[in-house]
Amino acid sequence: MTLPLLAPLSTDDLRAAGVPEPFAFGQADRVRFHELDVLDHVNNACYLSWFETLRIAYLRAYGISAYEGTADRPVLVLKSVSVDYKVPLHLEEVYVVAGRTRAYRNRSWTMEYGVWSDGRHCASGEAVIVLMENDFTTRKALPESYVEAFRTRDGAVYEG
Amino acid sequence: MTLPLLAPLSTDDLRAAGVPEPFAFGQADRVRFHELDVLDHVNNACYLSWFETLRIAYLRAYGISAYEGTADRPVLVLKSVSVDYKVPLHLEEVYVVAGRTRAYRNRSWTMEYGVWSDGRHCASGEAVIVLMENDFTTRKALPESYVEAFRTRDGAVYEG
Amino acid sequence: MTLPLLAPLSTDDLRAAGVPEPFAFGQADRVRFHELDVLDHVNNACYLSWFETLRIAYLRAYGISAYEGTADRPVLVLKSVSVDYKVPLHLEEVYVVAGRTRAYRNRSWTMEYGVWSDGRHCASGEAVIVLMENDFTTRKALPESYVEAFRTRDGAVYEG
Amino acid sequence: MTLPLLAPLSTDDLRAAGVPEPFAFGQADRVRFHELDVLDHVNNACYLSWFETLRIAYLRAYGISAYEGTADRPVLVLKSVSVDYKVPLHLEEVYVVAGRTRAYRNRSWTMEYGVWSDGRHCASGEAVIVLMENDFTTRKALPESYVEAFRTRDGAVYEG
Repeated sequence: MTLPLLAPLSTDDLRAAGVPEPFAFGQADRVRFHELDVLDHVNNACYLSWFETLRIAYLRAYGISAYEGTADRPVLVLKSVSVDYKVPLHLEEVYVVAGRTRAYRNRSWTMEYGVWSDGRHCASGEAVIVLMENDFTTRKALPESYVEAFRTRDGAVYEG
Repeated sequence: MTLPLLAPLSTDDLRAAGVPEPFAFGQADRVRFHELDVLDHVNNACYLSWFETLRIAYLRAYGISAYEGTADRPVLVLKSVSVDYKVPLHLEEVYVVAGRTRAYRNRSWTMEYGVWSDGRHCASGEAVIVLMENDFTTRKALPESYVEAFRTRDGAVYEG
Repeated sequence: MTLPLLAPLSTDDLRAAGVPEPFAFGQADRVRFHELDVLDHVNNACYLSWFETLRIAYLRAYGISAYEGTADRPVLVLKSVSVDYKVPLHLEEVYVVAGRTRAYRNRSWTMEYGVWSDGRHCASGEAVIVLMENDFTTRKALPESYVEAFRTRDGAVYEG
Repeated sequence: MTLPLLAPLSTDDLRAAGVPEPFAFGQADRVRFHELDVLDHVNNACYLSWFETLRIAYLRAYGISAYEGTADRPVLVLKSVSVDYKVPLHLEEVYVVAGRTRAYRNRSWTMEYGVWSDGRHCASGEAVIVLMENDFTTRKALPESYVEAFRTRDGAVYEG
């Protein structure tokens, strides 16, 4: 295993791990004992934590939120998530989680995720994230810097 | 709070908690500290564990799997899940998770879930469950007893 | 099962569940699927979450912290914990977690915990909790109201 | 950050991370969002999962259990654990968990653990592990190979 764990992978490493274009951001990790359930494979709920870990690294790397302090932190609310389970994962297997923004609207955007291990596509998922005012209720327009990052780095499209 | 926690609720209790027809199965529970994240509300991944807890009680109550021993236990594989987050939940709030099978096919079925608290519909979700042979690979036809329970208790429809 | 889950039990209910004197505070709960590990019993780390859930209910019931808002919330820091595992617990078993303060010093106190199920003493534990100033660094003297509650309700002793 | 995550570190890396002699086995990891609680630092129960992850890597590396299959797997039962919390950990901090067997008896042994981050000793802990027959009840004598590994690699002492 030569991938750095929990650090952004190079495009070459992503492609070598089986992550297809246009995914441009991903991190590797390894399955731990406490993520397994009675059936000896990774429990279904863990994938949402994996997507969350990837998402936070993504938001930091794309300059959207530093996740530090609380004063100027943008209020990002998870509106929905989904997961498709394709191949189960087992103890100590190394896997890559990749994520990209595939579409954006005026006040929200849609990320897609994938999990790859040993060249196999093990799971995919989606999440819709909404930008809110500090009242956690009023939706807020996405800053141009977000849109720019989504378009240039991920090839995201506007969904209107 | 007069609802029994983690035990099947009566139809009257379900309706009083805001769970609409045709949901016929649900359980109440209470938010714990370790389910909260930095934002002081229940973390997104917990909802999949809540659906799982409900699903296992459902499978036992509907005579599908006792979740005991391993010899004759049917091999049920979670194919996909989704969650829509509507209203966040906080420490010690009591909530009801309800679930029903809304559709079935020859070898799989689709459950829908909902979370209600204090009369508000806080989240909804879906899951597709596949019945497998003991090889965990070959799909297997649903026994008539499953279909009978899905139709008569939940009003499930055949999706072909 | 007739115990209310996750609500303070009466002394009679505690004794009937096998919880000995001088324990005066406890709650019942039920084992969930996601708490099991590959060995089909509750994972060792879950007991710390159970103690935490009990501790927060205890702190509210004893008038120490409401766990609401952040302004006047006392800064309680967990200094150490320990668990002794005696009897493993399995899916859907109902158990009681009880806790009491057995000793206090000027700026900290020691709680002991126990887990009982079906009349068996399944686990025990301890935790030391320190009261801090808002800087999270300087230890602070326990208010007389804490000491009064520890002594009269739990029979706690001063350790000097 | 140049440490490999979740892979056994060299002695030089351990010492550079602040892990003192005679610790000979440790792995690095990084704090994830879902490990934080409302107080914005790693929740107390996570440390038991960290020790568990380290312990399983240790048992594999020391030739005690491969954690594969179930036929010949030794029955290792966790008898007790404890944690001392010294310095809280925050989002994305890299830390090293190290573990060693400090003492053994005829049918059980005691491991000690430590967590270091940025040169600080953040937590310590212990666990007692018992070797059982396949009935999970009868204690079994430790094979000479375990004792040899504990003594030569960790400097463990016999406690009689």
